[in-house]
Amino acid sequence: MKALEEKILAEGRVLPGNILKVGSFLNHQLDVPFLMEMGKEIARLYKDCGVNKILTIETSGIPIAFAAAAHMNVPVVFAKKHKTKNVSGGVYSTVVHSYTHGTDYTVIVDNEFLSKDDKILIVDDFLANGKALIGLIDLVHQAKGRVIGAAVAIEKAFQSGGDALRAEGIRVEALAMIESMTDSELTFRQS
Amino acid sequence: MKALEEKILAEGRVLPGNILKVGSFLNHQLDVPFLMEMGKEIARLYKDCGVNKILTIETSGIPIAFAAAAHMNVPVVFAKKHKTKNVSGGVYSTVVHSYTHGTDYTVIVDNEFLSKDDKILIVDDFLANGKALIGLIDLVHQAKGRVIGAAVAIEKAFQSGGDALRAEGIRVEALAMIESMTDSELTFRQS
Repeated sequence: MKALEEKILAEGRVLPGNILKVGSFLNHQLDVPFLMEMGKEIARLYKDCGVNKILTIETSGIPIAFAAAAHMNVPVVFAKKHKTKNVSGGVYSTVVHSYTHGTDYTVIVDNEFLSKDDKILIVDDFLANGKALIGLIDLVHQAKGRVIGAAVAIEKAFQSGGDALRAEGIRVEALAMIESMTDSELTFRQS
Repeated sequence: MKALEEKILAEGRVLPGNILKVGSFLNHQLDVPFLMEMGKEIARLYKDCGVNKILTIETSGIPIAFAAAAHMNVPVVFAKKHKTKNVSGGVYSTVVHSYTHGTDYTVIVDNEFLSKDDKILIVDDFLANGKALIGLIDLVHQAKGRVIGAAVAIEKAFQSGGDALRAEGIRVEALAMIESMTDSELTFRQS
């Protein structure tokens, strides 16, 4: 999505540790009209695929998931970060490893909000190592639902998560794919 | 908003401790088309008031804030819950008391996303004791911005937060106001 690449170049900031800050429009301040355009593009990509629900993860996946859902006319379920490793009944749960924070965390979805009849599109803001997406796919499979595919705003294509998922046959769409990133230069992979 | 009252009656569940669970549409699973209707009503209520930005608080304020912003064509900023009490520079911060969890927590907004020129509408999912709204108002005032008013999906009108804010001259709109709530009955205040 050309407009997203231009926005990243104009507003993004690269910090040490391969961190791309896009808090001005994607995950702290939200440029809602622009996010709605991103959601429209996700809806176009997954048109006629039978998606009946979007699954994302709190917090920063929610805005882009919501925007896509508004165009696809489907509900969103967001997996919640759980405070302890002890999870009580009535939920699906999985453990996600965060490279950014160097820790594991548990996420849960109430089991009444995922079922075997669901055809799920997974949406998130960033894709790097893919651990969050793998966790979300695991939740759908626990419910015996079907994963139609995934859509992310920004993929760090120089990390392995996206291509590993594609190699497993999972459809993964990224609105912008960053090929390389340094303090002074940012290049995109053309899909 | 009649449709919201009906939705609460149909899908809400009352738990011990005056807790109303509306996870089926408002804060775990998100009924996005319905939330967009709620956002439209908030936009109608604050039409022509000069709002240029919406401020909310993660996590569950984000969907309803996003929906209102989509209709008002303005950005959203969400205050982030901070892990420690030590806050570094470059942010506005405030402490919010949670009655539900019996604890204090710190929320922050990067100071580049609030300014003295902002005319802010504060949006959240629930209003009970009003501590979250008071914290968000404090953040706006730290930035020397102006609070135009607040809008919440559901106000527990039997708790004092909303009326206390109104007594201070702050415009507070609630799409549904719960007057009383027991396991077997839920009544609404008519505005």
